[in-house]
Amino acid sequence: MNSRRIILGAAVASAMVMQVQAQEVPKPGKMTPDMTEFWEPEVKSVAAPVNAPPADAIVLFDGKNLDQWVSVNDPSKPAGWTVGDGVFTVKKGTGNIQTKQSFEDYQLHIEWKVPAGITGKGQARGNSGLFLASIGKGDAGYELQILDSYENRTYANGQAGSIYKQSPPLRNVTRKPGEWNVYDVIFTAPRFKEDGSLFSPARVTVMHNGVVVQNNTELRGPTQYIGLPSYNTPHGKSPIKLQDHGDPSEAISFRNIWIREL
Amino acid sequence: MNSRRIILGAAVASAMVMQVQAQEVPKPGKMTPDMTEFWEPEVKSVAAPVNAPPADAIVLFDGKNLDQWVSVNDPSKPAGWTVGDGVFTVKKGTGNIQTKQSFEDYQLHIEWKVPAGITGKGQARGNSGLFLASIGKGDAGYELQILDSYENRTYANGQAGSIYKQSPPLRNVTRKPGEWNVYDVIFTAPRFKEDGSLFSPARVTVMHNGVVVQNNTELRGPTQYIGLPSYNTPHGKSPIKLQDHGDPSEAISFRNIWIREL
Amino acid sequence: MNSRRIILGAAVASAMVMQVQAQEVPKPGKMTPDMTEFWEPEVKSVAAPVNAPPADAIVLFDGKNLDQWVSVNDPSKPAGWTVGDGVFTVKKGTGNIQTKQSFEDYQLHIEWKVPAGITGKGQARGNSGLFLASIGKGDAGYELQILDSYENRTYANGQAGSIYKQSPPLRNVTRKPGEWNVYDVIFTAPRFKEDGSLFSPARVTVMHNGVVVQNNTELRGPTQYIGLPSYNTPHGKSPIKLQDHGDPSEAISFRNIWIREL
Amino acid sequence: MNSRRIILGAAVASAMVMQVQAQEVPKPGKMTPDMTEFWEPEVKSVAAPVNAPPADAIVLFDGKNLDQWVSVNDPSKPAGWTVGDGVFTVKKGTGNIQTKQSFEDYQLHIEWKVPAGITGKGQARGNSGLFLASIGKGDAGYELQILDSYENRTYANGQAGSIYKQSPPLRNVTRKPGEWNVYDVIFTAPRFKEDGSLFSPARVTVMHNGVVVQNNTELRGPTQYIGLPSYNTPHGKSPIKLQDHGDPSEAISFRNIWIREL
Repeated sequence: MNSRRIILGAAVASAMVMQVQAQEVPKPGKMTPDMTEFWEPEVKSVAAPVNAPPADAIVLFDGKNLDQWVSVNDPSKPAGWTVGDGVFTVKKGTGNIQTKQSFEDYQLHIEWKVPAGITGKGQARGNSGLFLASIGKGDAGYELQILDSYENRTYANGQAGSIYKQSPPLRNVTRKPGEWNVYDVIFTAPRFKEDGSLFSPARVTVMHNGVVVQNNTELRGPTQYIGLPSYNTPHGKSPIKLQDHGDPSEAISFRNIWIREL
Repeated sequence: MNSRRIILGAAVASAMVMQVQAQEVPKPGKMTPDMTEFWEPEVKSVAAPVNAPPADAIVLFDGKNLDQWVSVNDPSKPAGWTVGDGVFTVKKGTGNIQTKQSFEDYQLHIEWKVPAGITGKGQARGNSGLFLASIGKGDAGYELQILDSYENRTYANGQAGSIYKQSPPLRNVTRKPGEWNVYDVIFTAPRFKEDGSLFSPARVTVMHNGVVVQNNTELRGPTQYIGLPSYNTPHGKSPIKLQDHGDPSEAISFRNIWIREL
Repeated sequence: MNSRRIILGAAVASAMVMQVQAQEVPKPGKMTPDMTEFWEPEVKSVAAPVNAPPADAIVLFDGKNLDQWVSVNDPSKPAGWTVGDGVFTVKKGTGNIQTKQSFEDYQLHIEWKVPAGITGKGQARGNSGLFLASIGKGDAGYELQILDSYENRTYANGQAGSIYKQSPPLRNVTRKPGEWNVYDVIFTAPRFKEDGSLFSPARVTVMHNGVVVQNNTELRGPTQYIGLPSYNTPHGKSPIKLQDHGDPSEAISFRNIWIREL
Repeated sequence: MNSRRIILGAAVASAMVMQVQAQEVPKPGKMTPDMTEFWEPEVKSVAAPVNAPPADAIVLFDGKNLDQWVSVNDPSKPAGWTVGDGVFTVKKGTGNIQTKQSFEDYQLHIEWKVPAGITGKGQARGNSGLFLASIGKGDAGYELQILDSYENRTYANGQAGSIYKQSPPLRNVTRKPGEWNVYDVIFTAPRFKEDGSLFSPARVTVMHNGVVVQNNTELRGPTQYIGLPSYNTPHGKSPIKLQDHGDPSEAISFRNIWIREL
């Protein structure tokens, strides 16, 4: 009975639905708080006492010896720098030294000191360097400058905290000769494509004595003393390198070096 | 005289040049080292004694008073938390507090401590939060979680060092209750277009007790307790906010807070 | 004679130099235009006649056969879709098809058409999908949605030009059923670290009928029909996949497909 | 037989499960498909017939006049280039022209043609330029090079499709003199901080005749003919500029120019 009326009713209902659709859109269902809680994987704990390296750190220098380092000129030979009093010091003429181990992305802690009696000026005053990745002999690699930049002006992209000849530090935080400086570095290595071309450039964040001086800075390529940098040398994991700049002045010392792979 | 011969010579020379061009390409002139030395502007010096804030820091808490802070519920009212012994402590029920001053991109240093006698577990154990930018009343903003995560598991994106409900910390570096934790934060505020849509998301790097736990992490939007974050609220410079989570447990303390505008 | 005066003069000169140094800094040497001209390597030429694929393109469908494609369910079997009149068409129930070849970063051109007589609405109207990288059976991968979005509203992140369930298109550029649509896609594959964690997310730029609808959009992970995407499945080069959505409606056709490795 | 053993086995298994459970963590609640469907805001439709500008495009040249352009030397004066046959052509010596309107982020379509009878070589052969943002008189701005690069080698970062003196095109896609070339450009303007320093660099994607030649390339600063680019000139929205290079050769023509603000 009355099937016509029913059909009519259905048509009316259908028209109403269409009218509603013209005005409204579905609302996504309500989520609950737990739906955005992610439990796995559990985050690893690496807490350590104040001033101790984190639990997952590889100690590259603990004050005793240079066992983690070798000569850059001949990696089969030990690092020839001087160890004493819990620090090690550049030994002029022995050349750069680098870690035995290779790294890709990492966090590095390193402390360096220009001797109190430093002389010279500009680049010839307490010059060394931390190569974030050594990609060959000599100074090949990505250099974070080490220099006495305390009341010693030089070009901005050549002072302490600079990515040498590329990026000046945001601030000059260098302490007086005789005082220790700290670099805390977060380094992301460049990646290359199969054909050797660049996929993504190196990036670095540097805290100098607790002040950010490089904030996720993009590197243009390996450091060039002359000319413009570019990524011509594809590479993978690399050692970290310290520079014997060979200057006629008192030598730079280092202590308390550790690294964490990221 | 002999202009024909000269012309001929010119034609020969021209042909030779063309032949050379078919084989070789010009070599850019050699640069000199000074051409990539940038002297201006001079980098500002902000060096400070060990453990002192950098010279360009704005001290947000020096151990004496909360003059740099106000109540979030009523910014015309002073912050109602408790000051004593060089620290200040959440006063349950007084609500969140925020800085008088607004900031955009910055570096922030802050130390926090869960009391030794803490009870409860999961999120109900030493819960507070650092809102990297407060964009409204209550908990509106971008929260870097503060929690007792020492042997107190919760969801990874809700533990200390997490961008709450977004990004877990890379590592758990939380010290025991009763010990001080340090956050060193580099924050890049989001930018919005004229029409209110997002131009670039917020980014943050966090060092927790000297260990990188967020490495230039991209934030998805303001923190959402329920549901998915998105950038619906365009904003400019914003105060920094600390959370009164109102938990039935001992309260969190803070000390040694400073900020540097970037 | 008067050596004292000379010495004095030298001292004065020296003082002047010092004064000058206090005010001025060295100026980098002037470069010449050629120093920023880079001749090598020579850029490869790939020019082609109007509407022809570039000279370095791999043609994935030239109108004749599906020789470049296989069944996703059983990659040892040929793609079972229908070829005719210079196009190929989804054959309902035969399942998804994918390229024989795998790709990493690339530019892709593809044309698709919803049949003129399409019925249904929302997601059930001309639904297919282009998986920018197929990372498993079925619908595993990163889906750029294909749908009749001409006067057919659905959720913004599910319409034509969307990264499905992630990123809505900037604009709706879908043409009427019966007309051809063009996607020009620039895809950067995600990269993973040795431990399987994400190094860099996938990125995509999409031009839909010549209008940019995705502008270097960062993908959150492989497409999830339910829940939140994340990068849990490390992978390298991957096939490109087209979806047999199995809807009870007329089927989608494709033509003129080519790809260039980047 | 041996049901006790079986039961025991079950109890052991159960205990093992409980032990495992003691190690397990809460599972987030299951989401439903609609929870990741975003309906608002509705995506605007801009579909247009094949070869017509999108519906939201501002037509900068429709074949009839240069009403949207002015002289760069004197923006109060009309653009002095030659209009005819649906195209306009550089009128040597009248100087650069720029749009009346200023733009920030945008998509631009432009077609250009080197005349069939072109002579000269290297940079002196069909030289013009598209300044993605004009930031001053003359050639101040960010130049996407226009040049006859068909069988006409020059430095890679100076040929058609290059960001001049910065980034070579990925491929050379230049057609023969007498044929039309197409640039489809997606430009993101640089952003500056309050103090005038750079917040984010300009970025550009360029399709040349349908081939990607710049893929979200980061610009180093405004174009420098001599020396190194850097962001010394903060600016907001800017006109788009075309170059009268003033070469002793046949002039370049343009047609079919439209832009969409992003």
